[in-house]
Amino acid sequence: MKWQQVQDGPSAVYVVVLDPGEEAVAELTAFARDRSLKASQVTAVGAFSEAVVGWFDRDSGDYRNIPVGEQCEVLSLIGDIAVADDGPAPHLHAVLGLSDGSTRGGHLLSGRVWPTLEVVVRDSPAELARTHRPEIGLALIDLG
Amino acid sequence: MKWQQVQDGPSAVYVVVLDPGEEAVAELTAFARDRSLKASQVTAVGAFSEAVVGWFDRDSGDYRNIPVGEQCEVLSLIGDIAVADDGPAPHLHAVLGLSDGSTRGGHLLSGRVWPTLEVVVRDSPAELARTHRPEIGLALIDLG
Amino acid sequence: MKWQQVQDGPSAVYVVVLDPGEEAVAELTAFARDRSLKASQVTAVGAFSEAVVGWFDRDSGDYRNIPVGEQCEVLSLIGDIAVADDGPAPHLHAVLGLSDGSTRGGHLLSGRVWPTLEVVVRDSPAELARTHRPEIGLALIDLG
Repeated sequence: MKWQQVQDGPSAVYVVVLDPGEEAVAELTAFARDRSLKASQVTAVGAFSEAVVGWFDRDSGDYRNIPVGEQCEVLSLIGDIAVADDGPAPHLHAVLGLSDGSTRGGHLLSGRVWPTLEVVVRDSPAELARTHRPEIGLALIDLG
Repeated sequence: MKWQQVQDGPSAVYVVVLDPGEEAVAELTAFARDRSLKASQVTAVGAFSEAVVGWFDRDSGDYRNIPVGEQCEVLSLIGDIAVADDGPAPHLHAVLGLSDGSTRGGHLLSGRVWPTLEVVVRDSPAELARTHRPEIGLALIDLG
Repeated sequence: MKWQQVQDGPSAVYVVVLDPGEEAVAELTAFARDRSLKASQVTAVGAFSEAVVGWFDRDSGDYRNIPVGEQCEVLSLIGDIAVADDGPAPHLHAVLGLSDGSTRGGHLLSGRVWPTLEVVVRDSPAELARTHRPEIGLALIDLG
């Protein structure tokens, strides 16, 4: 992971570029914690050699894992960064493009980068809290 | 719907969080009108319990409705807000993720939120007009 | 193509609207060069009458072309602008929605606009270089 701050000030903007073999969720979580990001927006394009996305099952209260075990274009990666119980955490949804142009997608659980992931992170001077909702089984942004 | 302004100034940024059961297009239209948004960008992730998306049929000059009658991840919701004849209006396109990781998408006609929709609205000090084009059957942004 | 600058300053924001029949990659490349954009973010929605997207084949070191020969909603168009050997160039990934709500997507190689493509370009005061990597077969953003 390399990054460059492309805009200064209280609403900093970063370009983060991930290297081959890096796992996107872990890297972006580490970046969010390192920079103490508390209310940011994330978009990205690139490609994964494999990924796991999730669909939230209301009945079980947990994500159903959907493995995508092949090279895929990251057609869109959109989400936000807010502060969960254990610190800043990204919430990312991905649409992945397969070799025949068909797509798969879900809540991004993990994505192995190859050859690159080009991420734009737009921070803000605010703080957003993500609070666990036991009745749902998820931590949601809580604007109070 | 709850919202928080996370960046001040002429280019205000808002985080809007929709609650279970709310309909996304109606809520975001109400938000745009309440805040008098005239030239904004919208991105969002979250999930719907059901949605209707549209594909524009050139022959009929209208959207063909595509119902998605099941719980789906909102993988991407992208669009803009401009001023139509009846006031500020969002134009939103959605990609939705089903339980097997397959996707559906189109122009968002309606989406019932469950459990959340996390929306970032980036306003600008400009004004964009959306003008009806009878020869097409749609209102398009008209930069004059 | 028409465009309007909706935010001034070193982090200018532009709304670019493409007209029926225009090819999106060529038009956005021309816009990036005309405005000398060196580190920008791009998002767009709209529709194409036809498009070609690509999936990068590691074995051949080149994109596999995936033609989408029908009217499709541009559900998401996300990417960035950086400076390649021959000047500013956009890197864009697209998700396209077909008449039955199914989707196709990939690296955008070409897209013929009909009736509109509404693009938001957020510039920054930085410069990003895109460097050819012969071992991969692609030009990647190089943060040095």
